Amino acid sequence: MKIFHSSTRLAGIAALLLIASPTSASPPIVETAVDLAQHGPDLAWSITEDLTTEIGPRMAGTEAEAAARRWAVARLQTMGFANVREEPFEMPVWVRGTEEAWLTSPFLPQKLAITALGNSSSTGAKGIEGDIAYFASFDALAEAPDAKVKGKIVFIDHKMQPTQDGSGYGYYGRGRFTGPNVAAKKGAIAIVIRSIGTDAHRNPHTGVTNFEAGIKPIPAGAISNPDADLLARQWKRAVPITQPQRFRMKLVLTPQNLGKKHSGNVIAEVPGSDPAASPVIIACHLDSWDLGTGAIDDAAGCGIITAAAKHVMKAEAPRRTIRILWAGAEEVGVFGGKAYFEAHGKEKHAVALESDFGADRVWRVDFKLPDSAKALSDRIAAAVMPFGVVRGKQPANGGADIGALVQAGVPAIDLAQDGTRYFDIHHTPDDTLDKVDPAQLRQNVTVWAATLAILANSSNAELP
Amino acid sequence: MKIFHSSTRLAGIAALLLIASPTSASPPIVETAVDLAQHGPDLAWSITEDLTTEIGPRMAGTEAEAAARRWAVARLQTMGFANVREEPFEMPVWVRGTEEAWLTSPFLPQKLAITALGNSSSTGAKGIEGDIAYFASFDALAEAPDAKVKGKIVFIDHKMQPTQDGSGYGYYGRGRFTGPNVAAKKGAIAIVIRSIGTDAHRNPHTGVTNFEAGIKPIPAGAISNPDADLLARQWKRAVPITQPQRFRMKLVLTPQNLGKKHSGNVIAEVPGSDPAASPVIIACHLDSWDLGTGAIDDAAGCGIITAAAKHVMKAEAPRRTIRILWAGAEEVGVFGGKAYFEAHGKEKHAVALESDFGADRVWRVDFKLPDSAKALSDRIAAAVMPFGVVRGKQPANGGADIGALVQAGVPAIDLAQDGTRYFDIHHTPDDTLDKVDPAQLRQNVTVWAATLAILANSSNAELP
Repeated sequence: MKIFHSSTRLAGIAALLLIASPTSASPPIVETAVDLAQHGPDLAWSITEDLTTEIGPRMAGTEAEAAARRWAVARLQTMGFANVREEPFEMPVWVRGTEEAWLTSPFLPQKLAITALGNSSSTGAKGIEGDIAYFASFDALAEAPDAKVKGKIVFIDHKMQPTQDGSGYGYYGRGRFTGPNVAAKKGAIAIVIRSIGTDAHRNPHTGVTNFEAGIKPIPAGAISNPDADLLARQWKRAVPITQPQRFRMKLVLTPQNLGKKHSGNVIAEVPGSDPAASPVIIACHLDSWDLGTGAIDDAAGCGIITAAAKHVMKAEAPRRTIRILWAGAEEVGVFGGKAYFEAHGKEKHAVALESDFGADRVWRVDFKLPDSAKALSDRIAAAVMPFGVVRGKQPANGGADIGALVQAGVPAIDLAQDGTRYFDIHHTPDDTLDKVDPAQLRQNVTVWAATLAILANSSNAELP
Repeated sequence: MKIFHSSTRLAGIAALLLIASPTSASPPIVETAVDLAQHGPDLAWSITEDLTTEIGPRMAGTEAEAAARRWAVARLQTMGFANVREEPFEMPVWVRGTEEAWLTSPFLPQKLAITALGNSSSTGAKGIEGDIAYFASFDALAEAPDAKVKGKIVFIDHKMQPTQDGSGYGYYGRGRFTGPNVAAKKGAIAIVIRSIGTDAHRNPHTGVTNFEAGIKPIPAGAISNPDADLLARQWKRAVPITQPQRFRMKLVLTPQNLGKKHSGNVIAEVPGSDPAASPVIIACHLDSWDLGTGAIDDAAGCGIITAAAKHVMKAEAPRRTIRILWAGAEEVGVFGGKAYFEAHGKEKHAVALESDFGADRVWRVDFKLPDSAKALSDRIAAAVMPFGVVRGKQPANGGADIGALVQAGVPAIDLAQDGTRYFDIHHTPDDTLDKVDPAQLRQNVTVWAATLAILANSSNAELP
């Protein structure tokens, strides 16, 4: 990966030198937003590097997230955006404690790489030990009689497979999203799942889970894929060895709920030349999980949308305002997106886009636009095709932070990124700057700049 | 990797079915050791899988290593080897405690993925905090005046690059082998190094370090490559920001020396038909570091040599005895190898070989043999060439556990493995079974079986 980085960086430098050379036969530089995105300063990289280096992990509702907001306001002002501001809100804060687990029987104790899921309850400092109830999948747990679960530590062993569009997340993710709730309803004393992830490293994948109102949360954790492999191998051996079977785990998870705390969205704008035209809203999220530095999730997303907006601003004053939303508290329940909708949901928005799927290249564009925007979507599809982006046949989804807007009818466009390796890194300690490929990051900015330049100059007849 | 595994496994099964089929045009099976290694039961995989699943981490001198010895004796007896025995010895035991570190200034505190190096001293439970003295390499530290080091936490930032023969370990490894001793002599309060490793995961690489007699050990740890990247980025920014520069780290490492404890070697033999002929000794090590399960270091090595010896034993009674040494306590100071030499160094050995460089394929054979063995080395080179193994031009090295024997003049052969990804995994939590490629593991066994069959039937004129 490093070798690839270096060579693409060198190629980038060579391209710049070629263009800058007075003896070059290249055409003169036209400073369109796309030119700037392709050959200008690497603003997306700087934002990603600086945020991960100077702030690092920034869990929603913590002092680190507040520091990230202060950093964000300063950076967006320095970049020359207008109306830079924090819009505060309150949200419930959950923080991690001790996280340890061991397979204790029938073999020699082996320690597992485990992390608590967001909203997990605590085992208490002394932990709990119990028999393991093994399930090959979420469906197997859902179908099991309560007697197989009651009083046990549930384990869901369902290995996620990578896909380019990340569409397996919904299917495999059920083990995390609702597995703990299902296990709690059936009387489990705790649940541990195979990480919702596609890698083979001892880095477990965290992420939020939710318990229904009235259901008492249980301790809920995820172990890494190699640990889950070990558990599955021991499980197969434990059944014939022990009579009655005693396949056991010890678990110490001591997360805490800290109650309601402050979080906030950071907003900045590229002012449009026509104050009567509705804005284009583009979103990412500023908060991150705490295990890594949130480089691909979602510093890079903020870098991409902001660099693209800056290039559009520098190249030409657009007709529509571009509003940049760096949402707070996305990971733990999309509190920033909800707060934005509460504050601004009644304002008219022309179209909404979000970047929150890593830093690998955009490969497909999907639309969810009014019929009036047929020609507009054709212009965008033609503009991004040179950068390797195909037109999709399914409606745009939108994304978490603009989800409420899109639900309420705001048009949406997805610049869909290659997710093949996204779930290797997602929500793990491994979400660090070295996972961002500068060449692919720049392709994202270029595609976004091309799209934004068209959207921000679209007519009132095309978009609301 | 998994897909590769599955397809090669299927190919293996298909090959077996083809050979077993009565209608097949394949030649009849000749049960040579090489045939058995290629098509027989996957004994190396079973040993590697069972040891890592049922025992797991087995740090020298601990109860886990003792359990591994009991497991090993039972397994080697079950496999039908002769003279299976434990040869106990004593050695000093060092065990890990709490391991935490943070970059604390001039930016927001960021937690680092750190592990203590073997023989590190303790910071005490409260830890220490100090200014960081940054060095780009071991050489830079070695050349620095004491004043730049005294009272500080030394950091060595020297990124190891992968090579197929692993020869960079000596060069880059100095930061770990002797960096702490050099830092202690110059008055450092602690040392943290960039892991001696070639990966980009948040899994630090442990390993032993040694302090000279008379030098008081200091706390010594290694951080993962992404953490070292972060530290280096912060370092560059810290210098202009702080006046006077305050680039600081907090460190909590609480390892302990437990004094002398029991360890032991496990030995088994394939009895030779000529009791007067000196034995061929083949070695691996049974102990492992404690962060992972010691799959590639060195369960696979024990699997490889033992499977090869078993295939030779099954195919034909060799003339020379093959002595299998599963050495104890290699990682922390080659105590098993030294104990073997003390007990058996005066016995004649025909030749010594060791497998302790992972589970990837053998690509080169190197010899260090008496002149009388010229034809023997030609026979071996010809026998392994069909499996993709080239003849090297440098003398064989031997390996740690047979090092004292080779030093004393016992001939040696190296079946050198591909080390391109070895230092991605070496001494990390990631040393788990999924990193072993069954197809490459089998190639190792095949090459070893071909070599052993020739060596065990070599004449007294060829080898001592």
